Amino acid sequence: MALPREYTSEDCPVARALEIVGERWTLLIVRDALYGVSRFSDFRDHLGIPRAVLTDRLNLLVENGILARVTAASGRDEYSLTAKGEGLWPAVWSLITWGNEHYVSEDGCRPFTHVGCGGTLAADGRCESCGTRPQPGELTLHPRAKTSPARKTDPVSQALSVPHRLLTPIARTPAQ
Amino acid sequence: MALPREYTSEDCPVARALEIVGERWTLLIVRDALYGVSRFSDFRDHLGIPRAVLTDRLNLLVENGILARVTAASGRDEYSLTAKGEGLWPAVWSLITWGNEHYVSEDGCRPFTHVGCGGTLAADGRCESCGTRPQPGELTLHPRAKTSPARKTDPVSQALSVPHRLLTPIARTPAQ
Repeated sequence: MALPREYTSEDCPVARALEIVGERWTLLIVRDALYGVSRFSDFRDHLGIPRAVLTDRLNLLVENGILARVTAASGRDEYSLTAKGEGLWPAVWSLITWGNEHYVSEDGCRPFTHVGCGGTLAADGRCESCGTRPQPGELTLHPRAKTSPARKTDPVSQALSVPHRLLTPIARTPAQ
Repeated sequence: MALPREYTSEDCPVARALEIVGERWTLLIVRDALYGVSRFSDFRDHLGIPRAVLTDRLNLLVENGILARVTAASGRDEYSLTAKGEGLWPAVWSLITWGNEHYVSEDGCRPFTHVGCGGTLAADGRCESCGTRPQPGELTLHPRAKTSPARKTDPVSQALSVPHRLLTPIARTPAQ
């Protein structure tokens, strides 16, 4: 079960935003959804998040219109970001750039490039080449220059070991 | 006591950032510090946060170099953002704009203007007038057009009922 929301006396938009995305794990789930993760098992295996917590957070995100839940042809539930959910990209990107600056070595950063022109995404969310502010679906995420010796082997980590366009479903081999 | 950090297996910069600022309340404390709040009692009264939780979160932010703690002439501890802490402004602004868009009526939004030229801050963090990307100390926060009937009366809420430049200490009457 989710923790009770504690910010209700706050009428600040940051507080309202944090009632939802400030819940532990939710922004990491949104980040994964931006990467194209849609299946429960993929979120679970990539994030290492307990099943009950993931169920709760997915429900929270669906209830708040950030994720949409659809039943796939396989009968399985799948999740995708709504327009409101995609609107969290600037917040996620701000945290990526802040985290990169303070906690990640340069060759440990994943470059993001603009599909339109190939330019690198700058810290302010603009393409360094053409100056526009790409939407997440217009960005390609590249693998790190330096690969970690303890690289994870779950389907999402594998899919992101090669360039991957954001919001594109995570590819799976038939055996998966 | 803070909850245990749960994202250590993640080498993503968002995860590293969320280990700190994803802790419940921390981004609201950072937001208040951006507004110029520096005293324990002001954070507590403005956020309505339990004393023990506030103590823990301030310690976490100091340990991680986001806030600096100094002993004022009065003998009281005061807190101010470091450069690393001010670097969280884009993340806070992204959450403000997302929160405004989805949860706040237009007259309930607090406008931010650029001190240099008076232009309004746009959703992408740029000044609508001169096109630069102001640092938080170059911004003035304005009160809402619509005041809430249940307006809070703590010193921070009072200070923010008139235009207030970010990072400027919250004014107090001598009786406070």
